Amino acid sequence: MDFAYGPGRNHLFVPGNNENHRTPAITALTKTLLDDVKKIFKTTSRIPFLIPTTVYFLIGQFSLLWIEQQKCLNFKIDVVESEWGQGVDLDALESKLASDKTHTIKAICIVHNETTTCNIIDFKYKYQHPSLIIVDAVSSIGALDFRMDEWGVDVVVTSSQKALSLSTGMGIVCAGPKAIEASKSATSLRSFFDWNGYLKCYNLGTYWPYTPSIQLLYGLRAALDLVFEEGFENVILRHKLVVEWYSASVTAIVGPPNIDSGEIVSRAWKRCNLSLGGGLNKVAGKVFRIGHVGHLNELQLLGCLAGVEMTLKDVGYPVQLGSGVAAASAYLLNNVPIIPSRI
Amino acid sequence: MDFAYGPGRNHLFVPGNNENHRTPAITALTKTLLDDVKKIFKTTSRIPFLIPTTVYFLIGQFSLLWIEQQKCLNFKIDVVESEWGQGVDLDALESKLASDKTHTIKAICIVHNETTTCNIIDFKYKYQHPSLIIVDAVSSIGALDFRMDEWGVDVVVTSSQKALSLSTGMGIVCAGPKAIEASKSATSLRSFFDWNGYLKCYNLGTYWPYTPSIQLLYGLRAALDLVFEEGFENVILRHKLVVEWYSASVTAIVGPPNIDSGEIVSRAWKRCNLSLGGGLNKVAGKVFRIGHVGHLNELQLLGCLAGVEMTLKDVGYPVQLGSGVAAASAYLLNNVPIIPSRI
Amino acid sequence: MDFAYGPGRNHLFVPGNNENHRTPAITALTKTLLDDVKKIFKTTSRIPFLIPTTVYFLIGQFSLLWIEQQKCLNFKIDVVESEWGQGVDLDALESKLASDKTHTIKAICIVHNETTTCNIIDFKYKYQHPSLIIVDAVSSIGALDFRMDEWGVDVVVTSSQKALSLSTGMGIVCAGPKAIEASKSATSLRSFFDWNGYLKCYNLGTYWPYTPSIQLLYGLRAALDLVFEEGFENVILRHKLVVEWYSASVTAIVGPPNIDSGEIVSRAWKRCNLSLGGGLNKVAGKVFRIGHVGHLNELQLLGCLAGVEMTLKDVGYPVQLGSGVAAASAYLLNNVPIIPSRI
Amino acid sequence: MDFAYGPGRNHLFVPGNNENHRTPAITALTKTLLDDVKKIFKTTSRIPFLIPTTVYFLIGQFSLLWIEQQKCLNFKIDVVESEWGQGVDLDALESKLASDKTHTIKAICIVHNETTTCNIIDFKYKYQHPSLIIVDAVSSIGALDFRMDEWGVDVVVTSSQKALSLSTGMGIVCAGPKAIEASKSATSLRSFFDWNGYLKCYNLGTYWPYTPSIQLLYGLRAALDLVFEEGFENVILRHKLVVEWYSASVTAIVGPPNIDSGEIVSRAWKRCNLSLGGGLNKVAGKVFRIGHVGHLNELQLLGCLAGVEMTLKDVGYPVQLGSGVAAASAYLLNNVPIIPSRI
Repeated sequence: MDFAYGPGRNHLFVPGNNENHRTPAITALTKTLLDDVKKIFKTTSRIPFLIPTTVYFLIGQFSLLWIEQQKCLNFKIDVVESEWGQGVDLDALESKLASDKTHTIKAICIVHNETTTCNIIDFKYKYQHPSLIIVDAVSSIGALDFRMDEWGVDVVVTSSQKALSLSTGMGIVCAGPKAIEASKSATSLRSFFDWNGYLKCYNLGTYWPYTPSIQLLYGLRAALDLVFEEGFENVILRHKLVVEWYSASVTAIVGPPNIDSGEIVSRAWKRCNLSLGGGLNKVAGKVFRIGHVGHLNELQLLGCLAGVEMTLKDVGYPVQLGSGVAAASAYLLNNVPIIPSRI
Repeated sequence: MDFAYGPGRNHLFVPGNNENHRTPAITALTKTLLDDVKKIFKTTSRIPFLIPTTVYFLIGQFSLLWIEQQKCLNFKIDVVESEWGQGVDLDALESKLASDKTHTIKAICIVHNETTTCNIIDFKYKYQHPSLIIVDAVSSIGALDFRMDEWGVDVVVTSSQKALSLSTGMGIVCAGPKAIEASKSATSLRSFFDWNGYLKCYNLGTYWPYTPSIQLLYGLRAALDLVFEEGFENVILRHKLVVEWYSASVTAIVGPPNIDSGEIVSRAWKRCNLSLGGGLNKVAGKVFRIGHVGHLNELQLLGCLAGVEMTLKDVGYPVQLGSGVAAASAYLLNNVPIIPSRI
Repeated sequence: MDFAYGPGRNHLFVPGNNENHRTPAITALTKTLLDDVKKIFKTTSRIPFLIPTTVYFLIGQFSLLWIEQQKCLNFKIDVVESEWGQGVDLDALESKLASDKTHTIKAICIVHNETTTCNIIDFKYKYQHPSLIIVDAVSSIGALDFRMDEWGVDVVVTSSQKALSLSTGMGIVCAGPKAIEASKSATSLRSFFDWNGYLKCYNLGTYWPYTPSIQLLYGLRAALDLVFEEGFENVILRHKLVVEWYSASVTAIVGPPNIDSGEIVSRAWKRCNLSLGGGLNKVAGKVFRIGHVGHLNELQLLGCLAGVEMTLKDVGYPVQLGSGVAAASAYLLNNVPIIPSRI
Repeated sequence: MDFAYGPGRNHLFVPGNNENHRTPAITALTKTLLDDVKKIFKTTSRIPFLIPTTVYFLIGQFSLLWIEQQKCLNFKIDVVESEWGQGVDLDALESKLASDKTHTIKAICIVHNETTTCNIIDFKYKYQHPSLIIVDAVSSIGALDFRMDEWGVDVVVTSSQKALSLSTGMGIVCAGPKAIEASKSATSLRSFFDWNGYLKCYNLGTYWPYTPSIQLLYGLRAALDLVFEEGFENVILRHKLVVEWYSASVTAIVGPPNIDSGEIVSRAWKRCNLSLGGGLNKVAGKVFRIGHVGHLNELQLLGCLAGVEMTLKDVGYPVQLGSGVAAASAYLLNNVPIIPSRI
């Protein structure tokens, strides 16, 4: 930061009760944030937007909710369906694109890391088609290796409360030139989420079309500092090490057939003060989920696994107590290096 | 709160990094918030929504921005214009309503407390017309006497960072039955800001259609507690005492004609670490503004006035140092009672 | 608290930079603290002192350090020695007292919960001797069942950073009438730790002979609230359940004979970000210690045990990974009830 | 700091509930603190001690209390008295030293910045006498220009809650080689405040003879960073500018003869939420005091003066409201430069 705050308190008499976002100090802070955010998207050519909302594309269970949302906004949708838990049917996508000779398909929308089923998608899109590629990477960016430029993705959205371990409240969108260009001629209605307000302010150097949460800006600064202090590639490696397949940020466990997984989630909270994720929609009652994204270490995870074991036992499933912890401990012991600065 | 948190840390393994909003504890908290929020809108019959956004209706300078926003969304607008700083031309409104025999006017949209010009509107709407009354009370609710039920207002919007002295990030909307009913048959496009998602969750008792900022929920609880501890009528009285006419939450000062008011704002920050509001749009460069809303007391205000005096002197205006502070001190001494609990 | 703080910031212009401890608000707060502190000592007849220091009687390893300290202050000491780890030789004490016909023994000094060896003492003092009973209960009070009145203890000392889970910085002493009386005629030199300054201020109702840490007072208020919210008997029960014998606040583990226990402590920190206690003095290099006092729950403890297992494996000891966690999980599952407010 | 903390939470299972002070991370932190603390004492040759206490030499009103304390500890005292408010009678001191041919005077004890009378002492000790010079600079160090090495002072004591704007709880002592040497052969009783425990740990590189408040260590790091960010000479200049004569950290105002100054202090708190210092001992009821030390700026001070004016008016003194603020504003405007980083 280039601005010393000087001694004593700031006297805040703007019409509002948060540090004034029109000072040079916040402008300088914003500039560093926009620069650094691009690093976790692995892009140099895209433009980031920090939007005061939970997440732009709502995303609940999550491909499905996205579709619902687009229907609300009168978009024409062609859904490429797969079995839940089976990953994306890329062949079906490819044949759809190939047959779209008139380029009526304007955008391919993909959830990168579907937290409901805990599937992740392998990107190798080199399709001969001018459509935009739009990715919901809400639970990926900041923890997984996402290469926006290399993969040629046009729009990516993430949010503050996942891998960045921040409070809920900030949607982070990165948009490439093709998407920005398309937005200019698009006729879809929009106001609050319109990039134009931002782009005008970026040009003016004022950055904010409306009042940002200063607290989240400071939080984002701290979160990015933690990521870069650990080393972004180390952060990715740490997530990778924990679970080698499927999603690296959340794991879905199919519960015992005779036990409602909702009861497992509820009992974990009551007995162990352990918050697990439930199953949503098609897998409600069938799976429960363990989130393991962001600022987290081995013993926190092992404590969680011990709690899952205790909970399963407690609801009547004949788990061997300690067995999961033992397996995970052995794995971690062999695969996680000592924190380098501590040797 | 009905839930003891028990000893030790919560073990958070949901897919996300904020306290889980699906626990009974947060559900119970949310219920108290929705109940208590209605008190500061002075309504018993309307439904409140806590929306993760800066403000639903953007509102910058602010009637004007609202109009711009509605144009973006393809609404048909009929603007009842007044001179800036002159208040609303209620006669013009009344004659427009009277001549609208076929009820094509669907909503009257009013900014209650226009922070750009620092005008406040006196409500006495008893028009014989079925249109909705929609009010932007962003800088009013929580500090001014706003009587939603008594005045028959259908929709009111406010936000977290004004009179509630919270962080930016939460829009608070209260909607009456007529507005809820109208929203069901309305054909305007909406998704993120759609009340229906909330209403469904209210019925289910889960409250949240998507992830709220738990931090802001706790903050809102604390902010409301402060308001009720001081006494809401005392809070209103305290704001009223400070300035008796025009807006009770912000005051616009017309600067000296030969001095750009932007320079006053800038100098105040540089020299005194004092953040003032600038003039916007038509009054840019002409006025500067002192916000005085929320959790604030006499000496903070007097320090601000001393800083304004120093700044005016510093930019070349021949102010008598101490004169404004003296006038305000005398006023406050005669009109503000001792904090009752301290006698 | 009886004092509302009123709106806005306190303007602090005392000579110092902490909230003024001479206001009625802090006086009222202090009164509630002195009242409530007595509850965790289980006394109604003793007088508590909150002393701005780490701990009055230094206490490191800890009986030993106490003895050293008393020698520095020129006290005559008669040490009743036991094997480390064997508990107190109460028979030896009894015979010493019996043979002291002229009452030259002025005080019996006992460490209640010796954290070095993790022994706890069973109190059943009903000796026919006028000597004072002085107890170091630093790591007991607030977690263990200590009955000052019932056991007839004259002086007890504890500190903020153990079972109360507060910051270091406050020594809490409770003294009965016999001790207060004795202090009046005692000729030992003292100044900073003299009770008289406190007693004078207690009589005046100003409470503080010198500047307390206001932050620690607020902290103590919050810590006591947590204890009483959980229920003090529940807190005692929770500690008891965890380990049934020896100290309920810390456990010493004798390490493998061929491995320096200091290496175990160091490796735990480097590999697992786990802070364990080392062995001190006679047991240095031989034991390591797990503290489990204060605001703590099952999964935190199980995570710790998993880390201890990983660390032992890592330094070459052939531990069965998961075995300790399994045993502890089984025990906790059968013995710890669900948090009542969550059922 | 040389130690990255790594991802996730530290698992704290030492016997105690604060970050373990035996980790290399805290050792490294302590080393930077001891180095940097010397800068605000302006010494390169003395040894600093960070002691978990309010202040070593109690110091209330303050020369007097120091004398009382030394009497408690059986020191022989020869008091060189002056009129309160008249500064030290250095001639009397000089003649006493000159007549002490046998060097029975072991130490000259001086309060540098007597906050009761708000006098400061000008150091020019170049006496031909081997006695130690011991200075209470509690309210000086960190705000005033104190030159330990240049002035040849042997022991200086300050504390955390004055110019450093930290919480109460840390006494900071700096001792030169002559004092350290004298302490070795001194026969006075001491234990808790004995430097030897520290010196042993300094030699071992473990630094702490007993548990420090980790929170205060982090706080001291932040406080020193603020001082060095502003520039220590700038901090001194800022204090100097505010008041040019007498103490630069606190100002005593003789109240109107017919009004108890205690009533002024009490009314300021009740009416204005303004905390002032009262008069102590000989000047109780006669003076009130305004502290102005530490992290403070112009408008905070002007708000305080406005509150003093309101309070004086309120208790019946015919003050001209605004007059003090006007005088101070004019002075500050002419003498305080714009914060350099903001130009």
